[in-house]
Amino acid sequence: MVSEKIRRMMDSSSFIRKMFETGAKLKREFGEENVYDFSLGNPAMDPPENFTKVLLEKAADQHMHRYMPNAGYPDVRNKVAEYISSEQQTIVNSDSVIMTSGAGGALNTVLKTIINPGDKIIASIPCFMEYKFYCDNHGGELDLVNGLSDFNLDINAIEAAITEKTAAVIINSPNNPSGRIYPKETIESLASMLTKKSKETGRTIYLISDEPYRKIVYDKVIVPSVMDAYKNSIVCTSYSKDLSIPGERIGWLAVNPEAEDFNNLINGIILCNRILGYVNAPALMQRIIAELQGVSVNIELYRKKRDLLAKKLAEFGYKFRIPEGTFYFFVEAPGGDDMKLVDLLKDEKILVVPGRGFSLPGFFRIAYCVDDSVIEGSMAGFKRTAEKLGLKQDKK
Amino acid sequence: MVSEKIRRMMDSSSFIRKMFETGAKLKREFGEENVYDFSLGNPAMDPPENFTKVLLEKAADQHMHRYMPNAGYPDVRNKVAEYISSEQQTIVNSDSVIMTSGAGGALNTVLKTIINPGDKIIASIPCFMEYKFYCDNHGGELDLVNGLSDFNLDINAIEAAITEKTAAVIINSPNNPSGRIYPKETIESLASMLTKKSKETGRTIYLISDEPYRKIVYDKVIVPSVMDAYKNSIVCTSYSKDLSIPGERIGWLAVNPEAEDFNNLINGIILCNRILGYVNAPALMQRIIAELQGVSVNIELYRKKRDLLAKKLAEFGYKFRIPEGTFYFFVEAPGGDDMKLVDLLKDEKILVVPGRGFSLPGFFRIAYCVDDSVIEGSMAGFKRTAEKLGLKQDKK
Repeated sequence: MVSEKIRRMMDSSSFIRKMFETGAKLKREFGEENVYDFSLGNPAMDPPENFTKVLLEKAADQHMHRYMPNAGYPDVRNKVAEYISSEQQTIVNSDSVIMTSGAGGALNTVLKTIINPGDKIIASIPCFMEYKFYCDNHGGELDLVNGLSDFNLDINAIEAAITEKTAAVIINSPNNPSGRIYPKETIESLASMLTKKSKETGRTIYLISDEPYRKIVYDKVIVPSVMDAYKNSIVCTSYSKDLSIPGERIGWLAVNPEAEDFNNLINGIILCNRILGYVNAPALMQRIIAELQGVSVNIELYRKKRDLLAKKLAEFGYKFRIPEGTFYFFVEAPGGDDMKLVDLLKDEKILVVPGRGFSLPGFFRIAYCVDDSVIEGSMAGFKRTAEKLGLKQDKK
Repeated sequence: MVSEKIRRMMDSSSFIRKMFETGAKLKREFGEENVYDFSLGNPAMDPPENFTKVLLEKAADQHMHRYMPNAGYPDVRNKVAEYISSEQQTIVNSDSVIMTSGAGGALNTVLKTIINPGDKIIASIPCFMEYKFYCDNHGGELDLVNGLSDFNLDINAIEAAITEKTAAVIINSPNNPSGRIYPKETIESLASMLTKKSKETGRTIYLISDEPYRKIVYDKVIVPSVMDAYKNSIVCTSYSKDLSIPGERIGWLAVNPEAEDFNNLINGIILCNRILGYVNAPALMQRIIAELQGVSVNIELYRKKRDLLAKKLAEFGYKFRIPEGTFYFFVEAPGGDDMKLVDLLKDEKILVVPGRGFSLPGFFRIAYCVDDSVIEGSMAGFKRTAEKLGLKQDKK
């Protein structure tokens, strides 16, 4: 009744479901406030005040809920294009921009447009594992390659994986789950390598840059532009994280104006956005984000959460890299067994995601887009777990 | 660069694109108000006042834009389930309901869940041709069968088309483009035939009922319940047409609580809604429609438009069936050549869609969800075209 493939997917995703079910059970048993849930990238922060202000203004206008061109309102695409031009240091006009139902909608639409049956899409470990489904949806296959130990891209590993079946490389910087921002030199090496390999294989290899965390960065780090580095690049993003509105499903994709076969690519993407059933990005949200280009929640609050967690986790003896962006810590599971660590933390009513959920066992992810009270409440549990595991506490 | 399949689709859909381009050109040339555009099902009517009222209320609440369970807010699913129970004359609880990004999102999610590679999905001509893409998206194939001359379903034709590859039958009542509502007896015959054939083929054949026009009906006709008639039924719909908000992408699907393998089916659909990149239906719109169950735009206004058009078109000598629902007329192309008729009307700056856009050449579709001024302005052109074609005018 359910297709065989979906049945298999349901079976194989059962460990994640089990985790969520256990979490829900803990909350029912001990009360929501006594469970420290760091499992989801669902920002607890409210959207910026300006969001609500613009929403109230736009909400009063009855004439804005009809279909518009599938690519989005022309004036919205224009405003977004202006903003992208500064963000990507490349002149982008509205023809390059397609409004989408979040980054999930953007990625699916792009992948459907470019994948021929059996094509491969390369991504670097650790990564957001929904990419696997997104590729499979359209007859492609995600091809995972190892990253470096500091979570940077391993350009040689990516190069070695490329064949004539490779349609694209997806990168995600700042990275979920590692918080890593790939440096400018890395993006440049990736770009020259892709240019070289595209020639060798006789096939344009696209660089798809999934950038929903671009504005959630610390210490004045700048996320390098993929458009500036590589002409066959496509940026996908959403306002979910930076405006704290993931439920509203609003984002965009932008094709580099220098991309080969630009017109076919854009028209193909618009067609796919329609025929996948998205039709167009939600109308009212398009109107709202048009007025909020460059706006985000107060990132300083995330920085405080990061620094608080970093200080304490280090004190307790956990090993990790300080994330340069996103609201995730990717922490080594002491002893290397991520599932065991997740279970130990669960005993402390702390919910985190094992590294294998990102194809990198031996780590666990803490999503710190939570209220400070959750962070504070969890500290004793993180400490006891560290003690149980005999971690060496930092006394300084 | 663009996949071969998408490239083929772009080529084959070029006649529709050409039509729209011609329309846009006409509007630029003669001014929007001098072109009578009946080509799109994009309601000109504003949403009901209550919609704006509820939107303004909900917009003030900052805490409502986060992710919720992929199936939708539990309380929204509850309210929708209550409403469906009365509409479908079947007790449906919230477990059966999944909030979706419109009917397009609902149909794609269901089809992805049930289609094995090479499966067929039967639909009756004339029909909304996006179904073809929706089936193909997930490795299936739309299997079109002829309807009866009064646009009712031909149960024998559907039965003859069923093989062990048939995963589902999609019906759309009230029908786009014909405006036909399939009578209760037809739905009952379809249900018994599907029960019989499911036994014969050893495979559950789902009945997917696409019902976005259910509330846009005239003369107190009631759209029969598929859930009451057939246990393996799934209803897909949206608020696009009845609330005039197609740009907002909000709808739902409901699985018959009596459906075989119900739990797997629902969980599979929730998984597919997530992995197709929809993630969840837009949050704010979920909150709004929860308060607007049973509400619709003033259907009486559509009835007036229908009656005005019916009177005039009949006078001019056009042949058609009075639509019982929807805001479409499906009119015989005099002489049988729909493309020729479309061209003749274009000369009068009237835009309509040829029947071949719904797999039934020889007809053309008029979408009358337009301002009265468009209908009135077009009358002279419809008349002149009738005269050119030598149609016999009704003098009464």
